Amino acid sequence: MTNDTMITVRQTARPDGFPTPGDFAFVESPVPAPEPGTALVENLQWSVDPYHREAMDSDLLWTLNSPMEGRTLGRVLDSRDPSLRPGDLVLHRKGWRTHSLVSRGEVRPVPDLGPGVPLAAHLSILGGTGLSAYVGLTRIARLKPGEDLFVSAAAGGVGTAAGRIARLLGAGRLVGSAGSARKVAYLTEEIGFDAAFDYHEGPVAELLAKAAPEGLDAVLDGVGGAHLEASIASLREHGRIAWVGAVAQYHSLSTPPPAPHNLFDLVGKSIRLEGFLVRDHMDAQEELYDLAVPHLRSGALPLDVTEAKGFEHIVDAFLGMLGGENLGKMLVTA
Amino acid sequence: MTNDTMITVRQTARPDGFPTPGDFAFVESPVPAPEPGTALVENLQWSVDPYHREAMDSDLLWTLNSPMEGRTLGRVLDSRDPSLRPGDLVLHRKGWRTHSLVSRGEVRPVPDLGPGVPLAAHLSILGGTGLSAYVGLTRIARLKPGEDLFVSAAAGGVGTAAGRIARLLGAGRLVGSAGSARKVAYLTEEIGFDAAFDYHEGPVAELLAKAAPEGLDAVLDGVGGAHLEASIASLREHGRIAWVGAVAQYHSLSTPPPAPHNLFDLVGKSIRLEGFLVRDHMDAQEELYDLAVPHLRSGALPLDVTEAKGFEHIVDAFLGMLGGENLGKMLVTA
Repeated sequence: MTNDTMITVRQTARPDGFPTPGDFAFVESPVPAPEPGTALVENLQWSVDPYHREAMDSDLLWTLNSPMEGRTLGRVLDSRDPSLRPGDLVLHRKGWRTHSLVSRGEVRPVPDLGPGVPLAAHLSILGGTGLSAYVGLTRIARLKPGEDLFVSAAAGGVGTAAGRIARLLGAGRLVGSAGSARKVAYLTEEIGFDAAFDYHEGPVAELLAKAAPEGLDAVLDGVGGAHLEASIASLREHGRIAWVGAVAQYHSLSTPPPAPHNLFDLVGKSIRLEGFLVRDHMDAQEELYDLAVPHLRSGALPLDVTEAKGFEHIVDAFLGMLGGENLGKMLVTA
Repeated sequence: MTNDTMITVRQTARPDGFPTPGDFAFVESPVPAPEPGTALVENLQWSVDPYHREAMDSDLLWTLNSPMEGRTLGRVLDSRDPSLRPGDLVLHRKGWRTHSLVSRGEVRPVPDLGPGVPLAAHLSILGGTGLSAYVGLTRIARLKPGEDLFVSAAAGGVGTAAGRIARLLGAGRLVGSAGSARKVAYLTEEIGFDAAFDYHEGPVAELLAKAAPEGLDAVLDGVGGAHLEASIASLREHGRIAWVGAVAQYHSLSTPPPAPHNLFDLVGKSIRLEGFLVRDHMDAQEELYDLAVPHLRSGALPLDVTEAKGFEHIVDAFLGMLGGENLGKMLVTA
């Protein structure tokens, strides 16, 4: 590989269960020159996300043997569009490759948020990951100050962002679940969860009831199954569950986890269970900046990021994220 | 029994599955004289409701061998409270007996809604039954004019009210399910449902997909199980399910129906599933009057009521309602 070479990842096979490196190929090609109306971007940071697991199963988002969608941050190298100038930092979705040819409508400038905001914030707490957490808490669960919240899979990208944002929003008791003792410790020691538990250590309903003995007002869940059942059991009247489609394990299963047996308690306790997709709430981006940026600048809002250095590790980073190796948002940097 | 005798129904045994007349007793006693601050009411109409089935299973609402709660309309016979005058028509919840001793805080005057509003409206379309339908459609499902709606168990009290109210609210395609050909015909011929099906005639998901081939925006469901699964399958993106705890069959089962397999589609389609109890929305009563009363007066809003004549039939009427014998609201009249 030279400076004239670009590398593009392609999905070459559909996984049966957990994906493997053999489902992907790294393809080299010459770095293209921009056509009129396009710019050449050198990518610097790549987001690998749980929803990409779902993308592997059909042609809806990814097509076999074709360049793949992915949230990416890059710098314009060369341009034949006057609105995109060399050196500009941009966000776009033509990720999983070292270089991308983009048109004006495909990019969003990285906003100048002032000093102290790390570049990695844009694909983590300020990106789709953080926005999922923010929208889930504010628009779906409608968390009010002082209310008690449970976040499932809380040590992942969305979960850590939800914990941080819940604290900024003035949440009451904050409870999280995670898949290892290391993650549980991270939640309570680093993020400020009041209680956390490893969901392998017993029935989730019992663990949650112990962690939130006085009940809950709101839940951000992306796991379903026993987590959803436990949430329904621990919620008080008029509780809300924001259900975010963000946990990879879910999609790796050939059959989804069982629906909760206590679903009818949604009626008796007047509980609202609401699914959402962050793409329907892009107008919340400015609100998220308003909330988070001052705390990023002051240092009060640290990033929860697991960084894989080198584009050649993007597939391993993705598979590692699916396997739960990351603390916080899994990010690949050049 | 003479005019000096009152009759009180008491639950004498907890049912195992479907209740029987032997679970109840009719107890005679002298009609009491009002104490200071109370009034003696002669009851004229009694509501028997699906939630009474649930009341049979614990001491939360009904206590064995004691007078039972029930929505009732009566006339003051004698009073030692100046605000309650003989002849006044009142609504109260000390039903399941021919006479009730009430205090001021236990009654609500039957409002004077002008000519053309039948007395039976107060315990059906204007009572808790109609209010459940109204709240479910307006506050929970937030039905907008032109939107397509499915009502499960649509030939019952809440279901018929939902059909009538949905038409008044300008619903688009209106689809209902019911448990017999007679009920299905009632829905389409009398209430104005665009399509209806007998849920015994095939998988509910198939029947609903055929009745609403272009999908749905909102659902009022009180059945759960296969009805809920079918609703999730037929709803469009951003669909809403108002889940009302109103269908007796549910509570007669020793185990609730299975939760839907497609529950995770709540995320993919951004669907909201929200349970509610009408008691939390009593402030909607005036809105319901405003909507319904003009149509009751004009005759455009007929009552859907199955009337059992004679207090001695109240237990049979209740059991018949649980068995689905009623078209519309089951009401007992003196």
